[in-house]
Amino acid sequence: MDIELGKAKKTRRAYGFDEISLAPSIITINPDDADVSVKMGGIKFNIPIIASAMDGVVSPQTAVLMSKLGGLGVLNLQGVWAKYDEADKILDKIASVPKEEYVPLMQKLYLEPTKKELVVKRIKEIKAAGGIAAVSSIPQEALELGPIARDAGVDIFVVQSTVLSTKHKSTTSAPLDLKKFCTEMKIPVLVGNCVSYEVALTLMGTGVAGVLVGIGPGAACTSRGVLGVGVPMATAISDCAAARDAYFKENNIYVPIIADGGMAVGGDVCKAIACGADAVMIGSPIAKSTEAPGRGFHWGMATPSPTLPRGSRIKVGTIGSLKEILLGPAKFDDGSMNLVGALKTSMGTLGAANLKEMQQVEVVIAPSILTEGKVYQKAQQLGMYK
Amino acid sequence: MDIELGKAKKTRRAYGFDEISLAPSIITINPDDADVSVKMGGIKFNIPIIASAMDGVVSPQTAVLMSKLGGLGVLNLQGVWAKYDEADKILDKIASVPKEEYVPLMQKLYLEPTKKELVVKRIKEIKAAGGIAAVSSIPQEALELGPIARDAGVDIFVVQSTVLSTKHKSTTSAPLDLKKFCTEMKIPVLVGNCVSYEVALTLMGTGVAGVLVGIGPGAACTSRGVLGVGVPMATAISDCAAARDAYFKENNIYVPIIADGGMAVGGDVCKAIACGADAVMIGSPIAKSTEAPGRGFHWGMATPSPTLPRGSRIKVGTIGSLKEILLGPAKFDDGSMNLVGALKTSMGTLGAANLKEMQQVEVVIAPSILTEGKVYQKAQQLGMYK
Amino acid sequence: MDIELGKAKKTRRAYGFDEISLAPSIITINPDDADVSVKMGGIKFNIPIIASAMDGVVSPQTAVLMSKLGGLGVLNLQGVWAKYDEADKILDKIASVPKEEYVPLMQKLYLEPTKKELVVKRIKEIKAAGGIAAVSSIPQEALELGPIARDAGVDIFVVQSTVLSTKHKSTTSAPLDLKKFCTEMKIPVLVGNCVSYEVALTLMGTGVAGVLVGIGPGAACTSRGVLGVGVPMATAISDCAAARDAYFKENNIYVPIIADGGMAVGGDVCKAIACGADAVMIGSPIAKSTEAPGRGFHWGMATPSPTLPRGSRIKVGTIGSLKEILLGPAKFDDGSMNLVGALKTSMGTLGAANLKEMQQVEVVIAPSILTEGKVYQKAQQLGMYK
Amino acid sequence: MDIELGKAKKTRRAYGFDEISLAPSIITINPDDADVSVKMGGIKFNIPIIASAMDGVVSPQTAVLMSKLGGLGVLNLQGVWAKYDEADKILDKIASVPKEEYVPLMQKLYLEPTKKELVVKRIKEIKAAGGIAAVSSIPQEALELGPIARDAGVDIFVVQSTVLSTKHKSTTSAPLDLKKFCTEMKIPVLVGNCVSYEVALTLMGTGVAGVLVGIGPGAACTSRGVLGVGVPMATAISDCAAARDAYFKENNIYVPIIADGGMAVGGDVCKAIACGADAVMIGSPIAKSTEAPGRGFHWGMATPSPTLPRGSRIKVGTIGSLKEILLGPAKFDDGSMNLVGALKTSMGTLGAANLKEMQQVEVVIAPSILTEGKVYQKAQQLGMYK
Repeated sequence: MDIELGKAKKTRRAYGFDEISLAPSIITINPDDADVSVKMGGIKFNIPIIASAMDGVVSPQTAVLMSKLGGLGVLNLQGVWAKYDEADKILDKIASVPKEEYVPLMQKLYLEPTKKELVVKRIKEIKAAGGIAAVSSIPQEALELGPIARDAGVDIFVVQSTVLSTKHKSTTSAPLDLKKFCTEMKIPVLVGNCVSYEVALTLMGTGVAGVLVGIGPGAACTSRGVLGVGVPMATAISDCAAARDAYFKENNIYVPIIADGGMAVGGDVCKAIACGADAVMIGSPIAKSTEAPGRGFHWGMATPSPTLPRGSRIKVGTIGSLKEILLGPAKFDDGSMNLVGALKTSMGTLGAANLKEMQQVEVVIAPSILTEGKVYQKAQQLGMYK
Repeated sequence: MDIELGKAKKTRRAYGFDEISLAPSIITINPDDADVSVKMGGIKFNIPIIASAMDGVVSPQTAVLMSKLGGLGVLNLQGVWAKYDEADKILDKIASVPKEEYVPLMQKLYLEPTKKELVVKRIKEIKAAGGIAAVSSIPQEALELGPIARDAGVDIFVVQSTVLSTKHKSTTSAPLDLKKFCTEMKIPVLVGNCVSYEVALTLMGTGVAGVLVGIGPGAACTSRGVLGVGVPMATAISDCAAARDAYFKENNIYVPIIADGGMAVGGDVCKAIACGADAVMIGSPIAKSTEAPGRGFHWGMATPSPTLPRGSRIKVGTIGSLKEILLGPAKFDDGSMNLVGALKTSMGTLGAANLKEMQQVEVVIAPSILTEGKVYQKAQQLGMYK
Repeated sequence: MDIELGKAKKTRRAYGFDEISLAPSIITINPDDADVSVKMGGIKFNIPIIASAMDGVVSPQTAVLMSKLGGLGVLNLQGVWAKYDEADKILDKIASVPKEEYVPLMQKLYLEPTKKELVVKRIKEIKAAGGIAAVSSIPQEALELGPIARDAGVDIFVVQSTVLSTKHKSTTSAPLDLKKFCTEMKIPVLVGNCVSYEVALTLMGTGVAGVLVGIGPGAACTSRGVLGVGVPMATAISDCAAARDAYFKENNIYVPIIADGGMAVGGDVCKAIACGADAVMIGSPIAKSTEAPGRGFHWGMATPSPTLPRGSRIKVGTIGSLKEILLGPAKFDDGSMNLVGALKTSMGTLGAANLKEMQQVEVVIAPSILTEGKVYQKAQQLGMYK
Repeated sequence: MDIELGKAKKTRRAYGFDEISLAPSIITINPDDADVSVKMGGIKFNIPIIASAMDGVVSPQTAVLMSKLGGLGVLNLQGVWAKYDEADKILDKIASVPKEEYVPLMQKLYLEPTKKELVVKRIKEIKAAGGIAAVSSIPQEALELGPIARDAGVDIFVVQSTVLSTKHKSTTSAPLDLKKFCTEMKIPVLVGNCVSYEVALTLMGTGVAGVLVGIGPGAACTSRGVLGVGVPMATAISDCAAARDAYFKENNIYVPIIADGGMAVGGDVCKAIACGADAVMIGSPIAKSTEAPGRGFHWGMATPSPTLPRGSRIKVGTIGSLKEILLGPAKFDDGSMNLVGALKTSMGTLGAANLKEMQQVEVVIAPSILTEGKVYQKAQQLGMYK
């Protein structure tokens, strides 16, 4: 809080992924020797990547596939798979509607309530196919859906809201008591999202197994435009990482933090870990896989709000299999494929043998701003000059 | 004043809405519990939104509608409604003229002097329809038009100039004595515009009921290009908020400050309050309503200058009713609709129960600069790659 | 020098016009009362505007017109008017050649040497028509052309090089001794260009009547791309203004500094004065006048270099008469016309009664960066959304 | 490390070429008197320019031509000339394949191993034609190819990896012992790339004849997007220059540093030297020559990675002869031609008589950011307004 916004308020500078870069040290390692595994909720994951609880990203099938590839996929209990028996038909409709009819359609489709029997069914589908079952719910419905999911055999439960606080005040409903909820669920509970040291610390104190970090940065998110709210990811992750370290020092309990949103290419995943994250939750990169339920589209879960829709439907296209996107080989040179290969190569380059070491690498502020020089260079490449 | 511009001058950094973002704290509240009412000039407004005194924004009809929706609309006494009996025909002409004929037409149309009988007529129209009547005048004509408006029953009088100072020097005319004017008007007088602590403080000392803050930031404003003058809104608001707080501490009189201009979407309104404003005055968002007199166009009131036209005519289009734009429900996800819903949701997210608490939320410097990454992301979404 | 570029070098931040804005104070004045006159070389000019010594900007005719409008036009003695008797035919050719043939043509045309008789003829043409005659030369030819121009009756002589230093080292020719040159010329000598306190100070010590400030900022200048050289104008002006003030304090001689280049609109002229300039030298704004010799084109004087051409030919178009561009009335709202009106209005707004007061107004750092919000706003205006 | 990225990490600001500019001092010199020669590995080069070891840039023929023009060209031993006898046919194929088939083709073509007999043949071709023979290899193959090249008569050997460290850890292969390698090679060994003081210093301690500086900045490089890795050039060069100076002070051995990548125009070359480089290694500017093997294309050497391709194929076009590009005369005014002329003119302007003095010139932070003003100016030039 060292910058004067104006005479009435102090502020601080916060940084996003596009403003930072990672700097090599005196050590390099063989990328094949880089260990990218992470432990969350007592489960060891070979790759630190979680597919977002978004309807264009995770279906029961992709959840299974994510598990088999070493990561995790979270199914949204306020999404179409828990609302509709024939979810595929709903997804077809979402993908085929023209732009101008999109928001009203979404507002209508998502008014349908979550069905308890579908919650059970989806979890059993994932488990039956050998996947790790993870589901998410908004806090308002967590108390009801949590026990149902647990009893259906879910492995991980995620309580997720645009902004989660430990002190929610409401005159119409009682807030979710996270401490009690975690105790009663018995299985690991991940919560989010938050962006600050204080909130991360208080969330960790409720007994959660992980904290999701990120408000406003996602490709399909328009929170910042509509609400003015958001904290750039690099700073948000670093702040919450400090909370994790402080909590561990005091309590000897390591609560991993998961960077959620705003990562479009492999380099962003590398930066998220370098800023202090233990794992990442990504949406749009996975929505581009042939197995993603979005049919080449990606949309935010705040979109269907009946009064204040936020989050756009974005055409991301389909570029390859989920395996290619996560583990390669990459067919393109733009960072969209082989995210784990990129992470390992980056770690090799930076001399980080595991994710804890990757969290310690040097970061420099180096904005990839669109300068005249870059525009000129690009224009030259496109043959606009000469 | 801590930055050296060069060896001859010290300067300071000033921030705009696009450079800041709002950061959540440890508390959230239910958006429905957020109180967005504000008291100005002894009148309580349910929503802190004032429609700008611009001809494309406020007609007598929209002024009435603004009142009924909980806000306020200000009619410009140097505008077409006070100059022409058949103002609608003039507005038709402005909307239909091609771009190259626009400035000369405006210069000609606005040479027509304000008619006292029309001032009276418009105020009575607004009052008769149950609206709160507010009108604005430039300082040079305020002394003459003020009493006429007051006697016609106006509720609020606004003295507005691009830049208002308390020490205006002129060799050809006597400056407006604001203190005397406020005393004689007896009704609440809002004044503006200013951008600094010192000017805000001296304006408050004249007995005004509110101060408009903002020079150069509006969508239809070209002051910065033409005159080089302007202060980014976030800093301007914070500086003037400090003046308000200092004035209140000394005199126990709370003079609200109204952020005027530069707010295009809901997030900008949220940021204005978070920077310290008590209310906002907006033009272009309201010009997009079906009820706006601009017929899908918006233009600045400095445009008609016969020698130095400033302010462009901008095609903003028509996106929905004034009610939808202010109170929702929103049909679009871009922040253009349900501004009050956005403000309440933002306040809920940030844990602010009322506007005074919203003024205290944490702001971070987080420029939404066009980086290479963002351009790449956008280009991908538009299908320019692959 | 407070910023570390890297471990081997310290640096400082320098600012350009696009990064600053002017902030109002507690005083405003009537624009009509703003005095914009300036005294240079013993001559009082009613407006502080000099037309650049560039072939697309100043012909003998426009030099006369500049004088009559209260300013000054400088004819380039290394330009077509001093090289060719029928200069108009040459200018026709430059304006009509296609882009790809432009540089070779310029390289060839400017190989023609300056003719002494044409130097005399042009000066006499200007004087005969009642204008103030000012001509410029590069340092290498100044010693020869200076006396010829003086004897022909020139009023002001300008020695101008991309970068002028007082210590020029060369193994092939003797450097120009400015002190001796000024003494022998007897008429006022303006010199440039420089960008630093030290150089400005040493130049003032040679007895010059004014110093041109600006390296690399002009619209037609590509010095920065080709040579990597340039200092943003706001800082350069402020540094040199400090030199002027220091020189005045020590010697009681006031040597005006003239901001040269990088001013495209009225707001830029206002900023140049506010940063400390006494006058401005502008090219592209004047090249847009119907009277300009460039026929709607503008080009830099470094373009014709046979081995290293710099400076592009830019199509600026023709927007109105020189009188309209300088004194108005403006037909457009973009700052391209009525530059003096803009300066006076800006001074009124900022409470500056004369140029010395304008040099003292408050400047804030407020980059008009292309942010996402602005691009969105612009796209909305262009109807690209919705 | 004076900036807080977030509560868990400190960082520093790093600068790129587009963010800096060079400022003149009180001295200028005649450009013809500027000495741009540099000594590396005991060889004196008349111009400080090395052509990158990239297949689109250096063939045996261009290597010879670079030598004759006073510089150096490095042939890549992991490139087509050392893999294929009829390399020209391979280059034809690379230039003719459509964009979508490019990455798979490159992945296949570069799987072909390097042939020892071709290494010998290429070196002898260069020597026979009177060129200085320089070849490069990745560290993994340097131990095998180094002696072969040395015995074939190579003059300079380059060990080059995206990121070179002195402490490479691998479980599958032994790292290259640079100290031993340099001793056994007997001929000068250049190594890279690095970006930090510490790594440059440790590399110098191994007895190398020069250090390449630059990670991630090149036109054909996508390391930053894919891996998140990279340090802007201005800071990287300055840091490594400090290492060179410290090493010289301690050991009295001067190990030149060579800025590698990110230089598109003459101004960038000037800036690289001004930041502290002794020479530059450039790719894309040379790929534009008629003699370049890339046939108007340019690509990075990380492109062919079978699992994680990085670096794009860029169409750079063909603008003139290699001689014109290096020594002029320039036909264009955009900084793409007569790089040495630009460097000499810049040095003249800045008063630097040789490269050591050029390393001492003043640098200012002056981002050539795309501002609204510049976009407006450019749009005006393109006739988009009025």
